[in-house]
Amino acid sequence: MPRTTAGPELDHLISLLSRLPGYGPRSATRAALHMLRKREQVMKPLAAALERVAETVKPCTVCGNWDAQDPCSICSDEGRDRSVICVVQDVSDVWALERARAHNGLYHVLGGLISPLDGVGPEDLRMRELSARSSEPNVLEIIMALPATVDGQTTAHYASEMLEGRGVTITGMARGVPVGGELDVLDEGTLAAALKARRPV
Amino acid sequence: MPRTTAGPELDHLISLLSRLPGYGPRSATRAALHMLRKREQVMKPLAAALERVAETVKPCTVCGNWDAQDPCSICSDEGRDRSVICVVQDVSDVWALERARAHNGLYHVLGGLISPLDGVGPEDLRMRELSARSSEPNVLEIIMALPATVDGQTTAHYASEMLEGRGVTITGMARGVPVGGELDVLDEGTLAAALKARRPV
Repeated sequence: MPRTTAGPELDHLISLLSRLPGYGPRSATRAALHMLRKREQVMKPLAAALERVAETVKPCTVCGNWDAQDPCSICSDEGRDRSVICVVQDVSDVWALERARAHNGLYHVLGGLISPLDGVGPEDLRMRELSARSSEPNVLEIIMALPATVDGQTTAHYASEMLEGRGVTITGMARGVPVGGELDVLDEGTLAAALKARRPV
Repeated sequence: MPRTTAGPELDHLISLLSRLPGYGPRSATRAALHMLRKREQVMKPLAAALERVAETVKPCTVCGNWDAQDPCSICSDEGRDRSVICVVQDVSDVWALERARAHNGLYHVLGGLISPLDGVGPEDLRMRELSARSSEPNVLEIIMALPATVDGQTTAHYASEMLEGRGVTITGMARGVPVGGELDVLDEGTLAAALKARRPV
């Protein structure tokens, strides 16, 4: 049944909006109404921005990060430390680490994790590219910044084995209590790992 | 601070998305990422649909409902009862009543409610158009389907007074217990009104 009486085009717009994360038919209808009210300030600029981003933002051929330029702005930034490559699952992890200003080296975006249950193997990820980059003479350290999940750790393990004997140091992120984290809401695994890896204050 | 490293265009897109109802910077970033992954299936069709709807969907000059045609599909539907006009606050109310198949007459969209606190007076609404339509000889009944709030009832009262003596019957929606509504979660006003307006079973 159509959501509106304004014809098939608005209903098509609502059905597209309702596929966005966090949106369903109701909230998509509300969003469409909101945009129709703010046609010049929101709707038309949004249409133009979507079109432009869809055309220009592409994966970097070096590291897999998305950018409007190739190599991406991080790979082509001469001010960054080219001896450290941070391996991440996805582009959103690059964005998160950059917002935290946590890493001044380069990145390598795998584009997923090894997941036998979902039928994702190493050949579906950017593993071969990582292997090639690790052999470049300037690379000294590779940080596995992958999730602390089964798939994340499987992937980190696979990559570490692949890179063994290349003369690069392989590191992983520290596990422990998150900054601002209350102890009584943390899971047992994190608590046990944080206590085991305790350090002098 | 930019949300991403992919350049100003993606950040501009995210800032536009974050103005949609229910979205903030984080969820807008997630939505942008989702769309970049589904460029051909979601992002480009959405850009095209937004552009098309922004260009074509306009208010009906008769009733104020939004449609790609003018008069709108409801006003120009010969199968509808032209003797009853249902007055609503907004286009979304037309959509809701149509989805419920609750009304087979015409509509009149006021485009808001009288609200002295927000500086909205009758002259900011489509009151003059309602007055003109109510004088058409075929109109017998006008239903005030306005919210059961202070502003809604003020507006209904104003419109009813304006239409007095035109020979049309003015009605309002029944107040009572919503279908499927539990009594113990309903407010006192609704309970008292529903009990007072009790009817033989």
